[in-house]
Amino acid sequence: MTLEVVWWSAAEASQATGVGYVDQRALPHELLRTVATSVDAVVEAIATLAVRGAPAIGVFGAYGVALAAQLHGSGSAFDAAAQRIRAARPTAVNLAWAVDRVLSAGAASYLSEATRIHEEQRAVDRAIGSHGCALMPASGAVLTHCNTGPLATAGYGTALGVIIAAHDAGKRLHVYVDETRPLLQGARLTTFELERAGVPATLIADGAAAATMREKKVAAVIVGADRIARNGDTANKIGTYGVAIAAAHHGIPFYVAAPRSTIDFAMRDGSGIHIEERSPDEVRRVGGSRTAPAGVPVYNPAFDVTPGRLIAGIVTEYGIARPPYDESIPDLQTYPSFGSLAALAESDAAGLR
Amino acid sequence: MTLEVVWWSAAEASQATGVGYVDQRALPHELLRTVATSVDAVVEAIATLAVRGAPAIGVFGAYGVALAAQLHGSGSAFDAAAQRIRAARPTAVNLAWAVDRVLSAGAASYLSEATRIHEEQRAVDRAIGSHGCALMPASGAVLTHCNTGPLATAGYGTALGVIIAAHDAGKRLHVYVDETRPLLQGARLTTFELERAGVPATLIADGAAAATMREKKVAAVIVGADRIARNGDTANKIGTYGVAIAAAHHGIPFYVAAPRSTIDFAMRDGSGIHIEERSPDEVRRVGGSRTAPAGVPVYNPAFDVTPGRLIAGIVTEYGIARPPYDESIPDLQTYPSFGSLAALAESDAAGLR
Repeated sequence: MTLEVVWWSAAEASQATGVGYVDQRALPHELLRTVATSVDAVVEAIATLAVRGAPAIGVFGAYGVALAAQLHGSGSAFDAAAQRIRAARPTAVNLAWAVDRVLSAGAASYLSEATRIHEEQRAVDRAIGSHGCALMPASGAVLTHCNTGPLATAGYGTALGVIIAAHDAGKRLHVYVDETRPLLQGARLTTFELERAGVPATLIADGAAAATMREKKVAAVIVGADRIARNGDTANKIGTYGVAIAAAHHGIPFYVAAPRSTIDFAMRDGSGIHIEERSPDEVRRVGGSRTAPAGVPVYNPAFDVTPGRLIAGIVTEYGIARPPYDESIPDLQTYPSFGSLAALAESDAAGLR
Repeated sequence: MTLEVVWWSAAEASQATGVGYVDQRALPHELLRTVATSVDAVVEAIATLAVRGAPAIGVFGAYGVALAAQLHGSGSAFDAAAQRIRAARPTAVNLAWAVDRVLSAGAASYLSEATRIHEEQRAVDRAIGSHGCALMPASGAVLTHCNTGPLATAGYGTALGVIIAAHDAGKRLHVYVDETRPLLQGARLTTFELERAGVPATLIADGAAAATMREKKVAAVIVGADRIARNGDTANKIGTYGVAIAAAHHGIPFYVAAPRSTIDFAMRDGSGIHIEERSPDEVRRVGGSRTAPAGVPVYNPAFDVTPGRLIAGIVTEYGIARPPYDESIPDLQTYPSFGSLAALAESDAAGLR
């Protein structure tokens, strides 16, 4: 049973109408379901990372606009509320995109448009899971990095969605999960999601990935992506590049799973990707504890770029792109919008595996 | 100025005779110097990892026997005390070896023999630093993993000793330090030691090592060793193997620095090395905080084995062994004991670089 991470919560009993969400800050300690019943609460949930993962933020913000309309009608108070939601996390491209899309649907259709965005997200994720399933071994060990499950997409997940889909299809996988320092999304979120999905999983320190590949005979590695260039170069959570190198060293196929929207068709290769550096304290501290001298300099890139030549396949909702990516990725641009379950059915019929 | 980690502390003013040590549990928060003035305190310091690092434990235990003799004379109370110290950390081979060596020196020479063990440790470390210096670039970035400095050896350190020696010799190095999960020896101890030695250093998450090699143009990697087989296969802290693979991928030379005593001349290759697994809670928790679901399975190998073919050179007190190790390592066995500063001088004269 997939975890519902974001949902529209209609008024009932003592509960006002609002946008429901799983507060990810409480994980892995508690599965805390909350309903944001005001625009302030919507904005705060986004700003404090209670809701995280670009697609999940987009879906949540879309429902947030529908809530704002119910609370504030269609005047200037509503306009201001929508803009506050749109700006709650400036780097989340999906958020601004989803808010704009709901707004352009017109006042009568805010909630149905938000619901449609959510449904499309689920459809895209399900297609990724379905296509990627073929890449997973019938049984054996696989390895993943960071968090790419329902918590990140408000759907079924991308890389983790592939793993869960393969498990649900009867493949007997055992997942090794990198804890993913500095923010420990693997330890905190991925292990939680796999436990909930009933997929056998084992947590490892990031440094143990190479030894795990050798000692546990890992058969495949699959990760998500923040941005993919035309030649397959893939920006993803810091640590992904080292995992890809170690996989190559052991002859293990390394796959990326991400929606087509992650591909920057205008970007020729990964050399142009700006590497964002985050706060030193993410590395100097863990939870409440300081683990290094207070003033020690830190290099804390948020992600790294894995060259396309280390990637055996890129799974999108349209199928699996294979090397040479210079040819297979531009092809993806030619497919029609993946806007509905009907399109998903067509895509399956076209056999784009 | 090298950090004195363990020392004999003669009685003065209000302080009784004892064995001084830096309590490593307080790092990086505080440089806490303590004197163990009873056998109980010596045993407790070892058992609680206040003193850690195999060579440092050996030196500390040796002084501990001298203290026990001063407190308990030479009767059965002394014998029991010496055996308690010897057994304070069963896996530390150096501890049993050092205690036995002090005991066999005879009652009149306990303190002088402990002092000699400490001096030899310093001489070995200094020779390793001196030989390894030649491997470091005149300027540029180097990367290391775990802790191999004075805190670990009660001397000058092994891999970190090489880095500090090169810095002291005028090489302009910038050291990238893996935090080294799960126990964070890099974050807690190595950054502290480099700061104290005045060597510019930057802390990174373990997952950032591969990206750092590429983005920061790392020129060399150097690490320590727990055990080295005859063909150069090297067991060291978990994460070392992945670092070695990433270094190879980038064409960066990867070096190991360790005393000859680390080499198991009877072991043909690394396949026979038993991989110790440690407590799951080391990975499930950081400091006082739990970072993963309470019951999640964990694979927590204490170390991994890096194949000799990924290692460009192994630095010992006798010089630098180069591939093929099947030839260069057995040679090391033929050298005389490195028991004194005189032997160090001879070794230098022989030009075993």
